[in-house]
Amino acid sequence: MNRRDFLHTAALGSAASYYTGAPLCVPPTAHPAARMTLSFRPFTLELKHAFGVSVNTRTSTPIVLTTIQYGKLKGYGEASMPPYLGETQESVMKFLSKVNLSRYDNPLELETILADIDALEPGNNAAKASIDIALHDLAGKIMGQPLYNIWGLDRTKTPYTVFTIGIDTPEVVRKKVLEVDPRFKLLKIKLGRDNDREIIRAVRSVSDKPLVTDANQGWKDKERALDTIHFLKENGAVLIEQPLPKEMVDDNAWITERSPIPVIADESIKRLSDLIAMKGVYHGVNLKLMKTTGLREAHKMITVARAFGMKVMIGCMTETSCGITAAAHLTPLVDWADLDGALLSKNDVFRGITFSDGKIILPTAPGIGAVPR
Amino acid sequence: MNRRDFLHTAALGSAASYYTGAPLCVPPTAHPAARMTLSFRPFTLELKHAFGVSVNTRTSTPIVLTTIQYGKLKGYGEASMPPYLGETQESVMKFLSKVNLSRYDNPLELETILADIDALEPGNNAAKASIDIALHDLAGKIMGQPLYNIWGLDRTKTPYTVFTIGIDTPEVVRKKVLEVDPRFKLLKIKLGRDNDREIIRAVRSVSDKPLVTDANQGWKDKERALDTIHFLKENGAVLIEQPLPKEMVDDNAWITERSPIPVIADESIKRLSDLIAMKGVYHGVNLKLMKTTGLREAHKMITVARAFGMKVMIGCMTETSCGITAAAHLTPLVDWADLDGALLSKNDVFRGITFSDGKIILPTAPGIGAVPR
Repeated sequence: MNRRDFLHTAALGSAASYYTGAPLCVPPTAHPAARMTLSFRPFTLELKHAFGVSVNTRTSTPIVLTTIQYGKLKGYGEASMPPYLGETQESVMKFLSKVNLSRYDNPLELETILADIDALEPGNNAAKASIDIALHDLAGKIMGQPLYNIWGLDRTKTPYTVFTIGIDTPEVVRKKVLEVDPRFKLLKIKLGRDNDREIIRAVRSVSDKPLVTDANQGWKDKERALDTIHFLKENGAVLIEQPLPKEMVDDNAWITERSPIPVIADESIKRLSDLIAMKGVYHGVNLKLMKTTGLREAHKMITVARAFGMKVMIGCMTETSCGITAAAHLTPLVDWADLDGALLSKNDVFRGITFSDGKIILPTAPGIGAVPR
Repeated sequence: MNRRDFLHTAALGSAASYYTGAPLCVPPTAHPAARMTLSFRPFTLELKHAFGVSVNTRTSTPIVLTTIQYGKLKGYGEASMPPYLGETQESVMKFLSKVNLSRYDNPLELETILADIDALEPGNNAAKASIDIALHDLAGKIMGQPLYNIWGLDRTKTPYTVFTIGIDTPEVVRKKVLEVDPRFKLLKIKLGRDNDREIIRAVRSVSDKPLVTDANQGWKDKERALDTIHFLKENGAVLIEQPLPKEMVDDNAWITERSPIPVIADESIKRLSDLIAMKGVYHGVNLKLMKTTGLREAHKMITVARAFGMKVMIGCMTETSCGITAAAHLTPLVDWADLDGALLSKNDVFRGITFSDGKIILPTAPGIGAVPR
């Protein structure tokens, strides 16, 4: 290769080795002294407005922020713990203190590392996600590539995010809908109390946007739920999430057989094993990194859900732009995204995805591309 | 960052941008003039020995070699067409002549590009694989990473390959087994004619290695097949591939319920849709890139098969070291590998995987790491 060819090639790829004349690949194992170190700290994410779903209302979310340092590179992650899921800052930090990343030579061996961490203890899904996210961020930075490139995805194929309206009185819901930036294309409406139709009529009095609806297990009777779903369909709902409690498997399946719009599992399906167990019970699944244990299992779940002919949505907890941007890199593979979580917080400590008329815009920097503020 | 830190960092990762001060990521779209071009040519792979399976015997395999050029980088692939699978050099080249890769800005968008190519025409699995393999090779070269790193796999977790003995008379089989390099840990024995027990006894007269056995749909009666499988188990077989013709779904499932060793689908499962359709019929599946349409779908099939609790084997046709090394990058995820194909040929035009006492050794160069001789 002459010098001219060599410079041309170096510009095409991103391999330092062309520059130095070293072999193209410099595996991290070539630097036995380099080791990953994990650090973490608690953080409280403050919400702009009190946020209600069918089971509770809150004004902040406990978070644990993680960093994996490898040489001069840093991978960022987080665990978000809405109170109804059973993890706490204490439980996450206790779990993370058991993780020893310094024993791995190659930080790119995510399959091995994450399997080892998963085997440490059952549960702890958000804690596991906080390592998975930071490892993916680090891997992308080592490779000099954003996650969408590593996964072979088209950055331009991201969907529009929904904008979520928390559960409230019909009058407050009406006001919140009026305040939504008009560029968002879909609204997500939380239902599941006893005033669903009033809420929908309040929304419809001020907006004709398509609605993603979510009962959050709030309904208890399948016949009545199906009636409500027909009402929702007539009022422009494009899907209904988790109509009945997750334990009511047969009744949820009964609704899925009859529903005029896709019925999407949320609480019923956390991990890949749940997806297999619930095959046929729902039309689709809402994946959230804090349920799936992170990006790697979420990616596998998309593959399996598609193989089953299922619809896929990606959602989030109230998270910083770190976790939300991580999830956003998978959205070129899905039907719907509910990734407005960072817009709902007052003290986001990362900059990440942005929106163009509601469509998700992925950063192009390596890894997740989320930058500490 | 001082100079010493900077050099340390540059050595850790492989991003040229540390060197130049440019942003870490140089997406290929930053070079709008660069476009992929696909070229291909027919090639005849000559076999060292006439190779027999239950349905035929041959001395060469028709191949089409593909190259995708992108700037100064070249991705290599191939299609291998054993005569019983219905594709020919002509059909492959006709299909490839319909593929227009120059319309894609970003060669890393494999999900989009391969879905478009798959939609061009049904079938043509080997032709599709020849593009998939070359695109993966190119993507790895653009990222400066071997495929195992991009997939997050541990290079050291490769299995031992089997060494395959073609079907023949018991006396010839005995001689062939005697000639096998003693460092190979498992033998693959082709069965499915009417002298299975004689062949196994001939093998056992000269070797006590574990046996991977393959009937290649050669048996027709489930009861008799099960008897033979018990005989195989008693003689050290660790699995049986494709006992009955693929059309005999219920009978194959009947055997799977009763077999003392794993029953592995080969001809029954080509693509992901077959894997879903055959759930429960086999204990596992033998994936070959020429059946799956390449690496991307094979990777998805491993994910789904594991989610189903199935065993996974990766095999090959008689291929050059290009296709075989490509497949080998997935082997840290599987139970068994049958990747001795290149050892059986006289005129391999690539150097790729090697073996250490029969264990697969993956090259560390970017992409597939197969180098033209």
